[in-house]
Amino acid sequence: MNKRLVIRLQGSILLIEALAMVPSLLIALYYGDSGDAAAFLKTIGLLLLVALPMHYLSKPRETNLRAREGFVAVALAWVLLSIFGGLPFLFSGLFTRFEDAFFEAVSGFTTTGASVLNQFEGAPRGIMFWRSFTHWIGGMGVLVLTLALLPQMTGRTSHLAKAESPGPSFSKVLPKMGDSAKILYIIYAVLTFIQFVLLVFVGRMSLYDAAIHAMGTAGTGGFSNYGQSVAAFDSLAVDVIITVFMIIFGINFALFYRLLIGDFRSFFKSEELHWYVGIVTVAILFTTAVITPRYQNFFTALRYGSFQVASLVSTTGFVTADFDLWPAAVKMILLLVMLIGSCAGSTAGGMKVVRVALAAKNIKREVSRTIQPRKVQVVRFEGKGVDESMLSQISLFIVAYLALIFIGTLLVALEGKFDLISNFSAALTCVSNVGPGLSAVGPTKNFAGYGPFAKYILSLLMLCGRLELFPIFVLFHPTVWRRG
Amino acid sequence: MNKRLVIRLQGSILLIEALAMVPSLLIALYYGDSGDAAAFLKTIGLLLLVALPMHYLSKPRETNLRAREGFVAVALAWVLLSIFGGLPFLFSGLFTRFEDAFFEAVSGFTTTGASVLNQFEGAPRGIMFWRSFTHWIGGMGVLVLTLALLPQMTGRTSHLAKAESPGPSFSKVLPKMGDSAKILYIIYAVLTFIQFVLLVFVGRMSLYDAAIHAMGTAGTGGFSNYGQSVAAFDSLAVDVIITVFMIIFGINFALFYRLLIGDFRSFFKSEELHWYVGIVTVAILFTTAVITPRYQNFFTALRYGSFQVASLVSTTGFVTADFDLWPAAVKMILLLVMLIGSCAGSTAGGMKVVRVALAAKNIKREVSRTIQPRKVQVVRFEGKGVDESMLSQISLFIVAYLALIFIGTLLVALEGKFDLISNFSAALTCVSNVGPGLSAVGPTKNFAGYGPFAKYILSLLMLCGRLELFPIFVLFHPTVWRRG
Repeated sequence: MNKRLVIRLQGSILLIEALAMVPSLLIALYYGDSGDAAAFLKTIGLLLLVALPMHYLSKPRETNLRAREGFVAVALAWVLLSIFGGLPFLFSGLFTRFEDAFFEAVSGFTTTGASVLNQFEGAPRGIMFWRSFTHWIGGMGVLVLTLALLPQMTGRTSHLAKAESPGPSFSKVLPKMGDSAKILYIIYAVLTFIQFVLLVFVGRMSLYDAAIHAMGTAGTGGFSNYGQSVAAFDSLAVDVIITVFMIIFGINFALFYRLLIGDFRSFFKSEELHWYVGIVTVAILFTTAVITPRYQNFFTALRYGSFQVASLVSTTGFVTADFDLWPAAVKMILLLVMLIGSCAGSTAGGMKVVRVALAAKNIKREVSRTIQPRKVQVVRFEGKGVDESMLSQISLFIVAYLALIFIGTLLVALEGKFDLISNFSAALTCVSNVGPGLSAVGPTKNFAGYGPFAKYILSLLMLCGRLELFPIFVLFHPTVWRRG
Repeated sequence: MNKRLVIRLQGSILLIEALAMVPSLLIALYYGDSGDAAAFLKTIGLLLLVALPMHYLSKPRETNLRAREGFVAVALAWVLLSIFGGLPFLFSGLFTRFEDAFFEAVSGFTTTGASVLNQFEGAPRGIMFWRSFTHWIGGMGVLVLTLALLPQMTGRTSHLAKAESPGPSFSKVLPKMGDSAKILYIIYAVLTFIQFVLLVFVGRMSLYDAAIHAMGTAGTGGFSNYGQSVAAFDSLAVDVIITVFMIIFGINFALFYRLLIGDFRSFFKSEELHWYVGIVTVAILFTTAVITPRYQNFFTALRYGSFQVASLVSTTGFVTADFDLWPAAVKMILLLVMLIGSCAGSTAGGMKVVRVALAAKNIKREVSRTIQPRKVQVVRFEGKGVDESMLSQISLFIVAYLALIFIGTLLVALEGKFDLISNFSAALTCVSNVGPGLSAVGPTKNFAGYGPFAKYILSLLMLCGRLELFPIFVLFHPTVWRRG
């Protein structure tokens, strides 16, 4: 293992984190709430103390990153980011226990949005801004950000981007990785800004609330600065803007680049997009149809139904209605869209639409094969034949994903606190990076009721989900820690 | 499609069903309960009326069965068997609605043991014997029975056995399919008889009760003639005998053949058996440890814990304790063993241990591959390298299996009757051919509360599970019904 390079990389990433805390620090200074500016200054000081030596004193002999090192570097970086990212919560007194601060930071960076925060009123605004800012940088990827800002830092870095970016393959929109990272971040920032402006001028939100909710939507995170989440605004305009943008941020960003360069054809012909739109539409119509009797009329049901479907399919987790009270069939549809998630190359979690679509096509092919065993049948996607080893990997990924949720449910249930559906939905919502679950972790509840053991397990599940399992699994493999 | 051959085959299978009703008819005559002998005579008459022309008048031009025909024949046979198998329940007045009789017959033949029967006292004994007898012939396979009795009937029949026998590959213990079927049925009958004798002499059951419970165990079905299931006997000896035999009937029968011919080495070196014993042991220890505080002592907890684990891992479904009241972590372990099931080539349901073991090994290999992408790594099982296409098929099978449970949950939930965990566990227990679920379909409840739509869906799920998905999926594929 090229340990020096891995250490140097951790240093760079922690420096970027220190830099990322500056906007929150400024907001803390602007509002002058007690204690939060000091909390940021302490954390930034600590970050510099740790990161500067790591970055400047660790001199790697070679700058090539092997696959194993890439995965280890990414997994470690996310753990370190979350440990340091949670410190402002501790220093400001928002939380008094380390596991709570760590849980909240992991939930932020992984864009899950599951919270252990009980008291929203009076929480320092700089700290709450940082909490939502972690969604924003976690959504597109902290390593991708590092690549965008420090492209010269490492030699070959495709492993890094591959390990961090969601979906079976990284969408390189430009030949150079650093350039791709930059253009994707610019698109991301512009879209976030458009939503921010709409929330302020059409949704009549304050600048602060609009920033919090735009970042929460863009990263498909779901942290709100209100205990009631988006329901606190009780505004049709806000609901519509956030619904539309949640769906938008579930789309592959490479497709937005295509739009940007005038290639409308690629955008509208994208097969994954068709599947995504199909899933969203069916889920919205189904949910609305079933819940209509519970609301005054079809349009009210559509408003709440579409918001919740968009929120869960994009794995954002904002809430405008207590879907835990909706009928079992709707809850099952919601759990399914949470599991599926959105497009690869978006900021969303879940298994990703492309994997589900390919698995569905593969099952259909298997049925045809049963009928005509001698006929060669190729699974096609986006107009091309899909490699058999890719299909095999995708099925295995889904099996591992579901196994992780089942094992996570079991571990969390060991605490003996809640019923099975709470534990299962907690594990699912964390692996899929959604936020709310059902029953004891339902949309009007939070995760504060769990003990430290369950909180660490759920934090691990969130990291597994965000990095798409294998980078985290690798950390538990003995050969990784062998010399050589 | 060679329709004549498929029709002729259905005829033969229905003739075997008529023959299979004779023991139940004799028991009905012996006890002289009102109406049940007449019910059997009517059904047998109807079967002969339908099956004799199908068998003798449909003259196929060729006797070779193509894959597609084999799968269609098997799937149709199981549907027809269940329709006719349910008629005695209707004719005797045990049920008044067709969907109930059909559900109970499907549940019997697929060895699920989920019931819609509310009234056990006074139910005619011939009918209750038939109900359990369907477990016994369904366990080893009705087509395998047909092959054993009428080996000359069709030319090449390996497709049939493949479609009906559980696990990724059919264990042909002897070169001729008919001989294999015969020897497996003899082992099956002898084991059942040994259990019957033990239940009578050690468990002090009546001959009738012992026969019912021996057949329920052997087929890993789980129908009892008591509403309380095995708890009705409240006997340690009965619990121990049934626990041990449930575990035995979860073992691959080809291994018993190995034992029979003195090849102890093959038996004890079987990797699938090691995994199976490992899973059963861990599940029993875990369950016992967690439930001990709820019972007087460790041994009482071990008695109920091991019975329930054995019952659910073997997908039998007998009950001695209301595990719906046990802690969430135990319920999750029980759901997991229901999902996994037992060994391929046994009478049990579930995904089968071999598939789960191979998927686990495949995930481990994938982690190693992430670390060392260039190293060729082969997954080994039973001392041999496993083909990549087999591994790929197994992952896909697991994905399809879980997808079926999720979609089944959704469909069943459409009725709006029960909560999510009831519907989910109902779908799982039916696909895995277990019997009891949780909550509204828990161990002290039954499936009578569902409406006709859910009962048909659950019947379909049981058939999908018993035939391992693809033979039933094939029925829904358009090309199957095309001419040619």
